[in-house]
Amino acid sequence: MEVDLQQCLRVAREAALAAGAIIKQNFGSGQLGIQQKSSHVDLVTETDKRCEEVIQSMLQQHFPQHKFIGEESAAANGGQVELTDAPTWMVDPLDGTTNFVHSYPFTCVSIGLSVKRQPVVGVVYNPMLGELAAAAHGLGATLNDQPMQVSSTQDLRAALFATEVGTMRSPETVAAVFDRIQTLTANMRSVRCCGSCAINLVGVACGRLDAFYEVGFGGCWDVAAGVCILREAGGQVLDPAGGPWDVMSRRVLASNAHLGPAVAQLLAGCKTSSEEPPAPAAAAAVAGSSQDS
Amino acid sequence: MEVDLQQCLRVAREAALAAGAIIKQNFGSGQLGIQQKSSHVDLVTETDKRCEEVIQSMLQQHFPQHKFIGEESAAANGGQVELTDAPTWMVDPLDGTTNFVHSYPFTCVSIGLSVKRQPVVGVVYNPMLGELAAAAHGLGATLNDQPMQVSSTQDLRAALFATEVGTMRSPETVAAVFDRIQTLTANMRSVRCCGSCAINLVGVACGRLDAFYEVGFGGCWDVAAGVCILREAGGQVLDPAGGPWDVMSRRVLASNAHLGPAVAQLLAGCKTSSEEPPAPAAAAAVAGSSQDS
Repeated sequence: MEVDLQQCLRVAREAALAAGAIIKQNFGSGQLGIQQKSSHVDLVTETDKRCEEVIQSMLQQHFPQHKFIGEESAAANGGQVELTDAPTWMVDPLDGTTNFVHSYPFTCVSIGLSVKRQPVVGVVYNPMLGELAAAAHGLGATLNDQPMQVSSTQDLRAALFATEVGTMRSPETVAAVFDRIQTLTANMRSVRCCGSCAINLVGVACGRLDAFYEVGFGGCWDVAAGVCILREAGGQVLDPAGGPWDVMSRRVLASNAHLGPAVAQLLAGCKTSSEEPPAPAAAAAVAGSSQDS
Repeated sequence: MEVDLQQCLRVAREAALAAGAIIKQNFGSGQLGIQQKSSHVDLVTETDKRCEEVIQSMLQQHFPQHKFIGEESAAANGGQVELTDAPTWMVDPLDGTTNFVHSYPFTCVSIGLSVKRQPVVGVVYNPMLGELAAAAHGLGATLNDQPMQVSSTQDLRAALFATEVGTMRSPETVAAVFDRIQTLTANMRSVRCCGSCAINLVGVACGRLDAFYEVGFGGCWDVAAGVCILREAGGQVLDPAGGPWDVMSRRVLASNAHLGPAVAQLLAGCKTSSEEPPAPAAAAAVAGSSQDS
């Protein structure tokens, strides 16, 4: 199937702006209409669902043959998601739901397109800060229509990284999450946690952050758009174990052009939790060989 | 000495806007002109110094009899700061210096006025987000001229808290910092780290956050303005050990009207570091008695 990346990017931008307008309209009333998902930490709002409907409808109108994976529809489907080589839109209609509920202005729409299992179009729009990041494979990355690129930091000790503590609160997972954060903090300049995976990826893409990793986030919809944007901005994306990144793994390590392997090496020495998604076989093999050397 | 709080607030706003304009003008060029302070983590920029000069000059012109404690002048003075009951301006010309250097848009001007050792005027201005928070004792708190108030969250497990990892990287202090964050994360909804103490205090004041604590930040200039704003927005300020807060202690626990004591109780069970400023005697005594009960 022939894919017109420029047209895909144009429609993705329009859909992101339409959903962003709904988010902005409802921002600050986030305390209303909350449903409880799996725990007190994981929240879903009516706004989330309405945004996904708007985005899905616009994408299906223009690209009726493309597949669609949305956070909300996946949840309704028991989390079962299957990826093929076919053009597949991966959509988080409202990334940073906890922030939305608390009126913390780091929420965004994240719309990515995967072809042959690689993100080739990405739009991340934070309507509260009025920041729209966009990219398509080979066409570069922009932030509010200005070209953007990653930082040039090469020294880990001068690097600012981001991560999130996720939603799992079992002692085993909390211990693993904090072993990683503590280890990186001890070796790097400082850490930021803004509560949105997609916004963190854009943060690395535009050079505000030098690296970002997260293990065990919701799904491919959290990272597809941001990874396309980051790569087009000159960044690199690895599995946190150091090997090749897999869009379905619920694991990501994003960095500027320099720091990925060094951060992966720090992470390799940290605790893991049996509740977290493990490294894909290919990534684990690479990490193992790098530790042996 | 008679203090006209409305006039003080007016001049503080003007000074914050003037300094904020300098920050905005220089934002994104933060990688230039960096000097190293005590370590690679603690950065100071030319912008920082220029902003303090502008603010100090405006305050001295209007209030020649008031005292002045600024982050930069204190640093030049070897960190020695003395507080009296006299009207004393406490100024951080650029809070979030690491963010400024990395172009992460959470930097602000923080201008507070202390009278009889209590903050009675506060202005915190984030020029990158265009958010100006202001308050004076008895006159209420505003965010961009709209009244603001703290959240109504009473359940710790539904509460979003913020903290920062600071700049000390010795194993003892890193262990204490992360024991606290891990303990609170295990008992609360999630954690945010934006890199600015003053912006975190405003975050609690306007209900985006339910609580914020930090131990061992730079000085009174980081908290004087934010504490006045928070109190006027209906929040409470304690020492992290649970007792009364002291503006000179380099320790703060801020919350909405409900959660302060419960957060202090969680913190009381956590590690401390000999490098961190200890709880003032009065605060420690209160914490001790609450632990006994």
